[in-house]
Amino acid sequence: MEPSNLNKEQDQNSWALNAWTLLSKLRDQSPLIQCITNFVSMDLMANTLLSAGASPAMIHSIEEIQDFTPHIHALCINVGTLSPAWLPAMREASLVANKAGKPWILDPVAAGASRFRLKACLELVGLKPSVIRGNGSEIIALSKASLGPTKGVDSSHESMDAMEAAKSLAQSSGAIVAVSGAVDIITDGHRVVGVHNGVSMMQKITATGCAVTALIAAFVAVDPLHALEATASALSIFGIAGEMGMDMAKGPASLRMHLIDSLYNLDQAAVSSRLKVSSL
Amino acid sequence: MEPSNLNKEQDQNSWALNAWTLLSKLRDQSPLIQCITNFVSMDLMANTLLSAGASPAMIHSIEEIQDFTPHIHALCINVGTLSPAWLPAMREASLVANKAGKPWILDPVAAGASRFRLKACLELVGLKPSVIRGNGSEIIALSKASLGPTKGVDSSHESMDAMEAAKSLAQSSGAIVAVSGAVDIITDGHRVVGVHNGVSMMQKITATGCAVTALIAAFVAVDPLHALEATASALSIFGIAGEMGMDMAKGPASLRMHLIDSLYNLDQAAVSSRLKVSSL
Amino acid sequence: MEPSNLNKEQDQNSWALNAWTLLSKLRDQSPLIQCITNFVSMDLMANTLLSAGASPAMIHSIEEIQDFTPHIHALCINVGTLSPAWLPAMREASLVANKAGKPWILDPVAAGASRFRLKACLELVGLKPSVIRGNGSEIIALSKASLGPTKGVDSSHESMDAMEAAKSLAQSSGAIVAVSGAVDIITDGHRVVGVHNGVSMMQKITATGCAVTALIAAFVAVDPLHALEATASALSIFGIAGEMGMDMAKGPASLRMHLIDSLYNLDQAAVSSRLKVSSL
Repeated sequence: MEPSNLNKEQDQNSWALNAWTLLSKLRDQSPLIQCITNFVSMDLMANTLLSAGASPAMIHSIEEIQDFTPHIHALCINVGTLSPAWLPAMREASLVANKAGKPWILDPVAAGASRFRLKACLELVGLKPSVIRGNGSEIIALSKASLGPTKGVDSSHESMDAMEAAKSLAQSSGAIVAVSGAVDIITDGHRVVGVHNGVSMMQKITATGCAVTALIAAFVAVDPLHALEATASALSIFGIAGEMGMDMAKGPASLRMHLIDSLYNLDQAAVSSRLKVSSL
Repeated sequence: MEPSNLNKEQDQNSWALNAWTLLSKLRDQSPLIQCITNFVSMDLMANTLLSAGASPAMIHSIEEIQDFTPHIHALCINVGTLSPAWLPAMREASLVANKAGKPWILDPVAAGASRFRLKACLELVGLKPSVIRGNGSEIIALSKASLGPTKGVDSSHESMDAMEAAKSLAQSSGAIVAVSGAVDIITDGHRVVGVHNGVSMMQKITATGCAVTALIAAFVAVDPLHALEATASALSIFGIAGEMGMDMAKGPASLRMHLIDSLYNLDQAAVSSRLKVSSL
Repeated sequence: MEPSNLNKEQDQNSWALNAWTLLSKLRDQSPLIQCITNFVSMDLMANTLLSAGASPAMIHSIEEIQDFTPHIHALCINVGTLSPAWLPAMREASLVANKAGKPWILDPVAAGASRFRLKACLELVGLKPSVIRGNGSEIIALSKASLGPTKGVDSSHESMDAMEAAKSLAQSSGAIVAVSGAVDIITDGHRVVGVHNGVSMMQKITATGCAVTALIAAFVAVDPLHALEATASALSIFGIAGEMGMDMAKGPASLRMHLIDSLYNLDQAAVSSRLKVSSL
């Protein structure tokens, strides 16, 4: 074996061990994840968190944040079905989370779809999320602060095209930035890691992107000091669950079911043999 | 074969070919469908659109409509969990869609359940939808502009009873009117077409009516000049997916899964052999 | 057989017969159940009611309550994703239901998570629900009127620990109080009944607690004069459906599907052989 291949294999094994360790911690600690998220995603997001071992709480009223948010382990903010009334609670929750030293993760759904939405997303980016996860179009819209050609919530950019935008956004925001795509890209502005797990049919299930953002929140909750690694691990674990689900699926709806079942049942052997993470 | 039977068979083949052509176009073009819809239906509606090949966008804030709605290919407005705060965005979106020449489809869920809801639905009917799809009770309530004996969102009228109401509503509104039931009825006020696909257990799955209305929006998006034919095709395709799902289902929840999988996998042979559309 | 064992067996048979009779009535009468509930639960709650034979209506606008609520057979109020704007409709609907002699059921989700939520729940308890169903932490929070150690919507108390709190709450409120857990407890403040059906994996599916509260509403709708028995029957029937689903499930998502299918298909033999209710 060539030395460089040997390094790659060692690297792969080390990523797999880390991802498995984080998933095991998550199952042991069952972190409480507050989700302020869009209506479409609530069911799948809660079920994703539960099947991974976390404890979801969909609590979005500003009246509750001072009492509740200090007790959480991570916060997921998703702007999918945004309306102005929800913004103050998003702001407040992110501030309370920051003050309490709890990580919070932003999902800027369809960031470039309107000036209202773009402005809201840019404001949230300024409130110091630990991680931002979006598709290529969303990350480019945030990075350029401009409306883009949008296909609603679906991306019209390949994730590789968005790499420069991701690095730039990570540098300006201080957040880890993850771009979902055929290859998921995760960067802190300097290092860039690629996750090659998952299957394309996952895009035919609504809210899989939202769900994996919440899973990132759960992974970062159990390892807040290594947000890049935790983010890559969550994306890889969700992708592996999708691959294993795909072995049994006959279409998008059965894939959704098998994906969640697979996430619940995932063992170390599957993680070791399937995880594909690489430095880019 | 009798000449009249021969005509019927040719007619059937022609409907099947048209339905298949529209589904193929939908898969190719992936039209962007904006859905302003009730909370119960969002998950199933988005997944129905995705599995059919369309691109759903659940965007309902009035702040986004001027920027976003001009880019869509069709709009679906559903009043299921209506509250006064949502009405201005429904109005605005329908106006922008009309101005941009994009079809919009109305689902008047439980139209006769309250004066508030009936008034809102009648106002929306006046804003020139391309298609209105409801169950018998809803179409009768709209046609008579009166509260009726209602069973919540479930119909207490057979769709055949609602045929006259549908014709009258189509004539007064200028919309294609579709009535779901054991036989679906579609009319422009003069022609009446019946769709005989589907299975009764679909009524035991929440939001299947809402989902097929969104599918109508996607079909009309790819053939806006033939809204009656597109509507009948969407109802037939969804019904066929239900029939194929029923072959594998053990109850309403597995039917829901198999229906979506079947819609995703539907091929021309299934459409040709199963489609049942007739002039009434 | 010992006389006491004989009594237990007769008691068990009598509970099973009663539960089956109520489920049969529910399927025959298809009661209309208004649900003012959280966004996460709407899909599963509606599908649970439909599969059991009831007719769900998710209607939450205060503008509709005077027209609509008098026609319902029971009302389910669930505070899961509570915001201040929803409270007036909850109050109004409970008052109209009470005035019309229709039972209403309260699900105080995460009652102890914030002062805002606790206050809202205590106010609703004062509006005379027929039944209150929660987990141990929620019932303790209501009974003590104090914020507690909360794990979001998941309970951090075993239901048996909550028995005294349940009895106290039942006595002070006049409601039947049900506490979900490994053993479900139902009490009117004096009698205490335990339901031993269900499987632990149901806790890994979001909104199963919400769904069973709606099912209680449907059971009480068909036997309003025996709310304790109807509540125990609903909890037992849902638990049996979960057990039967578990025989086919490979994880939480397939359990969810099989549970709903099993509820739809449940027959008297399964109820007779599986129901486990006992006096505590």
